[in-house]
Amino acid sequence: MATVGFIGFGVMGAPMATNLAKAGFDVVGFSRTPERVSNLASDGITLASSLEALVHASDVVITMLPDSPDVEDVVLGDGGVFANAAPGLLYIDMSTIRPDVAVRIAQSAEAKSINALDAPVSGGEAGAVEGSLSIMVGGSKEAYERARPVLTAMGRTIVHVGPAGSGQTVKAANQLIVAANLQGLAEAVVFLEAHGVELPSALEVLGGGLAGSAVLERKSQNMIERSFNPGFRLSLFQKDMGIVQAAAREKGVTTLLGSLLAQMISSLVARGDGDLDHSAMIRLVDELSRT
Amino acid sequence: MATVGFIGFGVMGAPMATNLAKAGFDVVGFSRTPERVSNLASDGITLASSLEALVHASDVVITMLPDSPDVEDVVLGDGGVFANAAPGLLYIDMSTIRPDVAVRIAQSAEAKSINALDAPVSGGEAGAVEGSLSIMVGGSKEAYERARPVLTAMGRTIVHVGPAGSGQTVKAANQLIVAANLQGLAEAVVFLEAHGVELPSALEVLGGGLAGSAVLERKSQNMIERSFNPGFRLSLFQKDMGIVQAAAREKGVTTLLGSLLAQMISSLVARGDGDLDHSAMIRLVDELSRT
Repeated sequence: MATVGFIGFGVMGAPMATNLAKAGFDVVGFSRTPERVSNLASDGITLASSLEALVHASDVVITMLPDSPDVEDVVLGDGGVFANAAPGLLYIDMSTIRPDVAVRIAQSAEAKSINALDAPVSGGEAGAVEGSLSIMVGGSKEAYERARPVLTAMGRTIVHVGPAGSGQTVKAANQLIVAANLQGLAEAVVFLEAHGVELPSALEVLGGGLAGSAVLERKSQNMIERSFNPGFRLSLFQKDMGIVQAAAREKGVTTLLGSLLAQMISSLVARGDGDLDHSAMIRLVDELSRT
Repeated sequence: MATVGFIGFGVMGAPMATNLAKAGFDVVGFSRTPERVSNLASDGITLASSLEALVHASDVVITMLPDSPDVEDVVLGDGGVFANAAPGLLYIDMSTIRPDVAVRIAQSAEAKSINALDAPVSGGEAGAVEGSLSIMVGGSKEAYERARPVLTAMGRTIVHVGPAGSGQTVKAANQLIVAANLQGLAEAVVFLEAHGVELPSALEVLGGGLAGSAVLERKSQNMIERSFNPGFRLSLFQKDMGIVQAAAREKGVTTLLGSLLAQMISSLVARGDGDLDHSAMIRLVDELSRT
C-alpha cells in the first residue's frame, strides 16, 4: 500500500493519522513541535526527521492544520511540501481554510504536476476517532478517485462536490448552517427554561418534528448542563465564520443571519470563551436574559 | 367509543378529523362557513346544526383554528364551547396560539370542571394526512391520559410537556428553531450556488454531518427549485414568530436571532409572499444578493 505523509497532529489530525495506519497504510509523520509526535510510534506511525524527508518518502501528503496561513506556510513556503515534491505526488489538505487559498494552492500544484485536493471534514473529534467523518472534496475527479482509498480510512460520507476550492466552500456552508442551528437551539432552550417547561420531554417532541437536527440531538445536553468541554472550540468557529463572511462577500451574497452569528461568536471569544465548545453560544443568550 | 366534536376544518383540521373517524370515533363537526364542511359526510363525520348541538353531543371537543382570537371567541364567547359544556367535558385545543391565552382558557375550564389541554402539532399537512403529527401537550397529567387514545389517532410522537400553556410554549420554541434552521439553510444554498458548487452532492455531505436536519432533508429541494407551494404559509409563520417574541419578552428572554428572523418573515409577508411556503425565506436572501 501507499506511503502517506501526515502533517498536523492536533485533536483531529492525530486520530485521523492513527486510522490510516490501522487501515494498513505506511504513515510517516512530521511536526515542528516534536512533543506533539513523540508517542506516535505506538500507533504505528514513523517519524520523519524533516519535512523534506517526509515528502521524499511519501506517495500521498496530507495536511491537517489550524488556519490558512499555516497551510500556505507548510505547503507553498521555502522548503515546504511543493518545493520538495516530485511530479505525481497526491496532496490532500483536510484543514478548514479559505476557498480562495485552496484555489491558489491547486494552481500552484498544477504548475508542478502535483494532484491537489481540498478535503475538509465535519464530525468533530468523535468522528475523527471513529473514522466516521464527513469529507467534502474539491478538485479533479481523477485526483478524487486516486484519494478515495486513503479518505475511506478516515471517513464514512465522502463526496466529491466540484473543482478546487469547492470542498472548502461546502465546509463554510456547513459551519453557517451549524451556527444557525446552534443559536436557534440555544434561544429555544433558554426560552423553555424561563417558562418552566420539562426540557427532556420538550426536546423529545421537538426532535420528532421539523425542528429535529443533528445539533439538537448532539448538543442540547451540553446546553442544558451548561457544560462546554470541547468538542469544537469557539476560537476555531470564529475563524470559520470569518471564512464564511469573506467568501460570501467575494461572490456578492448577503448573509444577514451569518453576519449576526459571526458577531455573536466573536463576542464570546473576545470575552474569554474561545476555548469552550461551540454549544457555549447559549452563554450569550443567558447573559442577555433575566435568569 | 367516545364522541368527538371537531371545530376547524382547514388544511390541517380536515384530515385530522377524518383520521379520528377512521380510528372509530363518532366525529361531529361544525363550521360557521358551511361550504367548508359540506362534503364531510363521505369521511364518516356527522354535521351538527349549531355549536351548542355539537357540544351537547360530545364527550371530547377539539378546536383547530388559525389564531388566538378565533379560539377565544369559539371557546370562551357567548354561546361558545364552555357556555354550553357540562362538567367533565374534555376540551383539547390543537391550534397554535399564545401560551398566556392557553393558560387563561385552562383557568376558565377549571372553574367549570372541564378538563382542558393545549396540544399544538408539528408535521404539516403531510403529517396531518398520514396521522404522523408530533403533538406537544400541556395540562394535567390526568387530562393527558384521558386524551391519549384520541391524540393517538392523529399523531405519532405524543408527549406531555408540563402544565397548561406548556404545549404552546414548546410549539413556540419549535417555530423559533425551524425559522433559524430555514434561514441558515437558505443562506447556505445561495452561497453554494454563487460559488458554483454542485448542490445535490453538497447537500448529501452536509446532511451526513452536524449540519444535518429535518429542514435540510425536507425543504432544500423547494429552495433549489424556488418552488414554494404550501406546505406551511409564511403568514401563519409570521403569526407564530409574533407569539415567540411576546412569550420571550414576558419572561425576560432575549432572542436576538429570533427577532431578526421575525423581521425577515414579516418583510416577506408585507411584500406579498404570505401565501408561499416558509421555504420562501430564501427569496429575501436572493433579493439582497447579486444573483
